[in-house]
Amino acid sequence: MTVAAAPADGDRLAFIGRIRTPWTDRRDCPRQGSTDGPECRLIVDDVWIPALAGLDDYATIEVLYWLDRARRDLVTQSPRGDGTVYGTFALRSPVRPNPIGTSIVRLDRIERGILTVRGLDCLDGTPLLDIKPDRALFIPKAPPKSGV
Amino acid sequence: MTVAAAPADGDRLAFIGRIRTPWTDRRDCPRQGSTDGPECRLIVDDVWIPALAGLDDYATIEVLYWLDRARRDLVTQSPRGDGTVYGTFALRSPVRPNPIGTSIVRLDRIERGILTVRGLDCLDGTPLLDIKPDRALFIPKAPPKSGV
Repeated sequence: MTVAAAPADGDRLAFIGRIRTPWTDRRDCPRQGSTDGPECRLIVDDVWIPALAGLDDYATIEVLYWLDRARRDLVTQSPRGDGTVYGTFALRSPVRPNPIGTSIVRLDRIERGILTVRGLDCLDGTPLLDIKPDRALFIPKAPPKSGV
Repeated sequence: MTVAAAPADGDRLAFIGRIRTPWTDRRDCPRQGSTDGPECRLIVDDVWIPALAGLDDYATIEVLYWLDRARRDLVTQSPRGDGTVYGTFALRSPVRPNPIGTSIVRLDRIERGILTVRGLDCLDGTPLLDIKPDRALFIPKAPPKSGV
């Protein structure tokens, strides 16, 4: 089953839905999500709802999202503001050249394209990029390849 | 420290380097990377090399990359080719609306912007999107926020 055309091409992202969280100000977002945290919802666009088939086999899933309000030009950062400087790639800050958040979240339920999860840390309204089974739980469906 | 301008804007990705792996044909790529696998290299573009400062504190890191040769229009897939169908989001296949690979890899060493790692599964030449500390090892540097 395909969509009518690839949703985007080249190096352009395709938003597949939106994330609803309790946080509307960046200062309120947790520094890292916790599976003990509040319920959040992934609202998947209608065209991608059939792509969720089988996902409810997984208690935890990986979620990718686009931190669209983060600046992208910092090579080094001082998160404490005390002069201690870290490279951007040594941090999990939203500020990075490609502001893609990745979280492992607990999947509580899926109802009509809405996933209820716990463990996110992003602002309400954040664009959704991808959903995958937790790599720690996933067993490839296709047969093994020779030599690998 | 910043780059002269944000490396890209809107929903456009910025490639920060390239990945070198032993696999030049998709049929040879492992289905999932393993930290027992062969050495691979992340070649970080010069402008982003200072962003690696402090990353060598981590024995394992998360790598994001752009699977630029994967189709993006499949909503469901049959990985075994036997008629059993799964939703795209219930698989870790490279075929997905935003073909972003995420792997946790072992960091062996960093030398002049070249990271030697084990645990990747992608084709040689794959564009590099991001490098982060493994979430399981990372402790936020900034002080905790109230209430979270």
